[in-house]
Amino acid sequence: MHAYRSHNCAGLTKANVGDTVRLSGWVHRVRDHGGVLFIDLRDHFGITQVLADGDSPVFAELEKVRSEWCIRIDGTVKARDPELVNPNIPTGEIEVYIRDLEVLGAADELPLPVFGEQDYPEETRLKYRYLDLRRETLQNNMVLRSNVVASMRKRMWDKGFNEFQTPIITASSPEGARDFLVPSRLHPGKFYALPQAPQQFKQLIMVSGFDKYFQIAPCFRDEDPRADRSPTDFYQLDMEMSFVTQQDVFDTIAPVLAGVFEEFGGGRKVDAPQDWPQISYRDAALWYGTDKPDLRNPIKMQIVSDHFRGSGFAIFANLLEQDGTEIRAIPAPKGGSRKFCDRMNKFAQGEGLPGMGYIFWREGADGMEAAGPLAKNIGPERTEAIRQQLGLEVGDAAFFLGGKPKSFESVAGRARTVIGEELGLTDKDRFAFAWIVDFPIYEKDEESGAIDFEHNPFSMPQGGMAALEGDPLDVLGFQYDLACNGYELVSGAIRNHKPEIMYKAFEIAGYGADEVNSRFGGMVNAFKYGAPPHGGCAAGIDRIVMLLADEANIREVIMFPMNQRAEDLMMNAPSEPTNEQLRELGLRVIPQD
Amino acid sequence: MHAYRSHNCAGLTKANVGDTVRLSGWVHRVRDHGGVLFIDLRDHFGITQVLADGDSPVFAELEKVRSEWCIRIDGTVKARDPELVNPNIPTGEIEVYIRDLEVLGAADELPLPVFGEQDYPEETRLKYRYLDLRRETLQNNMVLRSNVVASMRKRMWDKGFNEFQTPIITASSPEGARDFLVPSRLHPGKFYALPQAPQQFKQLIMVSGFDKYFQIAPCFRDEDPRADRSPTDFYQLDMEMSFVTQQDVFDTIAPVLAGVFEEFGGGRKVDAPQDWPQISYRDAALWYGTDKPDLRNPIKMQIVSDHFRGSGFAIFANLLEQDGTEIRAIPAPKGGSRKFCDRMNKFAQGEGLPGMGYIFWREGADGMEAAGPLAKNIGPERTEAIRQQLGLEVGDAAFFLGGKPKSFESVAGRARTVIGEELGLTDKDRFAFAWIVDFPIYEKDEESGAIDFEHNPFSMPQGGMAALEGDPLDVLGFQYDLACNGYELVSGAIRNHKPEIMYKAFEIAGYGADEVNSRFGGMVNAFKYGAPPHGGCAAGIDRIVMLLADEANIREVIMFPMNQRAEDLMMNAPSEPTNEQLRELGLRVIPQD
Repeated sequence: MHAYRSHNCAGLTKANVGDTVRLSGWVHRVRDHGGVLFIDLRDHFGITQVLADGDSPVFAELEKVRSEWCIRIDGTVKARDPELVNPNIPTGEIEVYIRDLEVLGAADELPLPVFGEQDYPEETRLKYRYLDLRRETLQNNMVLRSNVVASMRKRMWDKGFNEFQTPIITASSPEGARDFLVPSRLHPGKFYALPQAPQQFKQLIMVSGFDKYFQIAPCFRDEDPRADRSPTDFYQLDMEMSFVTQQDVFDTIAPVLAGVFEEFGGGRKVDAPQDWPQISYRDAALWYGTDKPDLRNPIKMQIVSDHFRGSGFAIFANLLEQDGTEIRAIPAPKGGSRKFCDRMNKFAQGEGLPGMGYIFWREGADGMEAAGPLAKNIGPERTEAIRQQLGLEVGDAAFFLGGKPKSFESVAGRARTVIGEELGLTDKDRFAFAWIVDFPIYEKDEESGAIDFEHNPFSMPQGGMAALEGDPLDVLGFQYDLACNGYELVSGAIRNHKPEIMYKAFEIAGYGADEVNSRFGGMVNAFKYGAPPHGGCAAGIDRIVMLLADEANIREVIMFPMNQRAEDLMMNAPSEPTNEQLRELGLRVIPQD
Repeated sequence: MHAYRSHNCAGLTKANVGDTVRLSGWVHRVRDHGGVLFIDLRDHFGITQVLADGDSPVFAELEKVRSEWCIRIDGTVKARDPELVNPNIPTGEIEVYIRDLEVLGAADELPLPVFGEQDYPEETRLKYRYLDLRRETLQNNMVLRSNVVASMRKRMWDKGFNEFQTPIITASSPEGARDFLVPSRLHPGKFYALPQAPQQFKQLIMVSGFDKYFQIAPCFRDEDPRADRSPTDFYQLDMEMSFVTQQDVFDTIAPVLAGVFEEFGGGRKVDAPQDWPQISYRDAALWYGTDKPDLRNPIKMQIVSDHFRGSGFAIFANLLEQDGTEIRAIPAPKGGSRKFCDRMNKFAQGEGLPGMGYIFWREGADGMEAAGPLAKNIGPERTEAIRQQLGLEVGDAAFFLGGKPKSFESVAGRARTVIGEELGLTDKDRFAFAWIVDFPIYEKDEESGAIDFEHNPFSMPQGGMAALEGDPLDVLGFQYDLACNGYELVSGAIRNHKPEIMYKAFEIAGYGADEVNSRFGGMVNAFKYGAPPHGGCAAGIDRIVMLLADEANIREVIMFPMNQRAEDLMMNAPSEPTNEQLRELGLRVIPQD
């Protein structure tokens, strides 16, 4: 017989009754039923009930065994009494009578129980991650992650993509976030950097004549802690293609992602790729108050400025006298009660706004009646026009926000989310996707008036060089995101592969050719030797697994995560270097106050 | 029509004759046949011949096009004249008459031609890697690598392994080589390290209750430059399993590797896994003079001390009076000529030995005759006994080396290689594998006499705790390598998962419990909470691809390699940090002399 097991702990069924078997695993739970010891023996695959009584030659030894000891047992498979059958596990019809025992690994007193999955402080969970990971939820999450990544790879291969590894120890490439640096020993005083993303390398792969690249790529950013991101690194499904338009990229990646969500979504509805709307960045801001809208929520905001212009509601009427102001409505179907409307008004106040005006429609003595202070101020005609524009009925409400859109847009977006949740409009059993397109290339700094890149400086401006001759703020890029259930899942672009357009684009943002050459020289030089048009995107893997596993904390989908202070409590990182290490690197640590 | 292509450059055949098509690609070669321009248009997939004459509306523009410009053409597919058909490429029966042209990316004068693949200095090749990569050899190598890695993944999944990503920014883990360090900004003065291998993490994954782990894992070692390794990082197929014996690991990984070599070996013979011998570390040293023998070479060395003890060959006879000395023979079938024997003798002298004695057997007047000075010294009887032991015949030779094995073993191994090569005994069209097993756990420092770990300190000693009570130099480990064609392809072990045996093993090598806890605390602590027996191995991916691609330089199988001074000439790494970066990290660079 094998040294450790003839079967795994999910492998025995009624068909094995009478067999002599060998199992290895962890003691999940011990129950002492007056002279009979029952042990739930657990391995990665499942649980088998094993037992012994005083007749077993190893009963005395077995009595010493505690939770989470790793043991090997030999025994005989027996059918359980019908009333003791457990239909919830594959081995529920049998149990194993123990005739031999070997302790493979004993356990000290546990700082964290595995059985039961009680809540424990995160620091304890991270320090004893190997115990935490034995819990069913994390076992499942890690296998889910592994399967999701495997499925992504298969789907990309099927589409003719090659996976290529790009350098991890490489050059500093200021793309927005802060680099992790790696001091060079062979070149003291110089540093490598860990890549924030393989963006430059994947573009170089296209310039090198490869047609379709992807990589499950580790990305490194030295960012300040936040609950929903790792403070050090994260993984992307990174891809790039040559000779493609934006629509080609969508048509390639959408079925991959939809397929993954179908495969691992546990039956939740997945919108079909052909139904994923393409929404411009500006429309997304208007309709949803965000560039990552949650389309499970059917609420779509609208501009209703005209109904308030010169109206009796002085606050809005006066606001509209100023340049660049607008009134927007958030329709709230089935939200037509004063109690609900007041609660939403308070929500807006909590978010730092003076409040949200509202109207709601109820059954009155003479049919439909509009209620709320706003309705009174603007009068029945305007109120009715608003109702018709928004398509609302009795029992519905609408909320109103006004001013310069930037000042209230994000609160409006959050209000839309809360309204959708509270009114039960948001379909929780669905993954709803939308492409957000037509991102502006530039933005103006409100204070300095300076023009800078709004997003990625490497995107091709729509209209090419000609577009850069006009007003920079009008220039849109072939740049896009994919939103899913309120999260940004994918980000990408058709790249600016023409050196002359790239220099011009940077010049507009105030960067001279010298600076472009010194910061992005590797890539820009390459573009001078026959660069193909190319584009691609990157999908956040941690985020996708979080959505599929229905987890809110990124540490629940990473095998060995850092804590929020970027420390590994299990491995004790970071730690003090030795003097020898510092000397070899030519570095001195500056004493901190 | 699509913006860039209706077909790729390998897609058109005779069936398309008459079609209007659109192609994009690079100008591989331009030929001007007196008023007719022929261009080999190349993309990742292949080459299509396109042409134009003065009747084409874009002839004038086309005349400006140069090598490696990226262009898009529209045109009509024509059948080539029968005498111009190129049977070597899929598109060899057609050509495309150009009617429209768009320059997608022009090229400056090339520092490195793509067509023809002339040899160029490596620094130029690395600086303009994107041009170098367009060459057919590197295109093929990169796709081979991608396919090899994909195949490994599929094979591991099929065996029930999950791929899990382990941390890249982690703790320093002195495993032999030098760590790359990463300064922490949030904890100034402290450093992370990049993992030399995920060894501790994969063992922790086993302690966490996962059953089968693998990863295509980047490994980072700050090593001094060498031709056949990357100075910064390399990739391993890393795997680990719980509840396994050494044989289980062999039975799992061998078919994976054999499968990969079968799939990508281009028809070269691949030894079947059941035929891979298991050779002890000591036998490998004796028979092959190395722990990574090339078994394509049939030569097996033997101990022949007895034939020289007290013989007339005083050098060997005297040597054998000393403790620990031995005489070994390298049989050389078909090497029986004085010229060859003298050449091998010179080879040994070039390797720093006084020379190699030899005997060769030839057809003499009275039948077989043994020649060479050695034969004369020891006389016919001993000579014949040697011949019989080695199984040699007329036309064969044998070489002899003596002394303490450590002093000549590696030269003997190299001599065996050269003999096999020169005599044509080594089958070049074969991948020959051997497991090397029973590595000693400890070695004695010749000078200090101190006992230290010979290889990996984490391997389980054969015989467990009891074995550690005896002579440390007799302790063998469940530790193994896989050799292929003279290279170490795989290394692994059944791990020491018992804290008490681990502390004892380290104690013998002079490391106290405190040091074990501080250096390997993460892992050793975990072993105190119910660790399962486990083991695994890691296979070097760069090496495997080099063997399959028949390349001698690792930079030929890596997309963007460093040069041998650990510099990325294309991206300009490493580079000077900014003062701001140093300040944030709390570091100061010590000025170098």
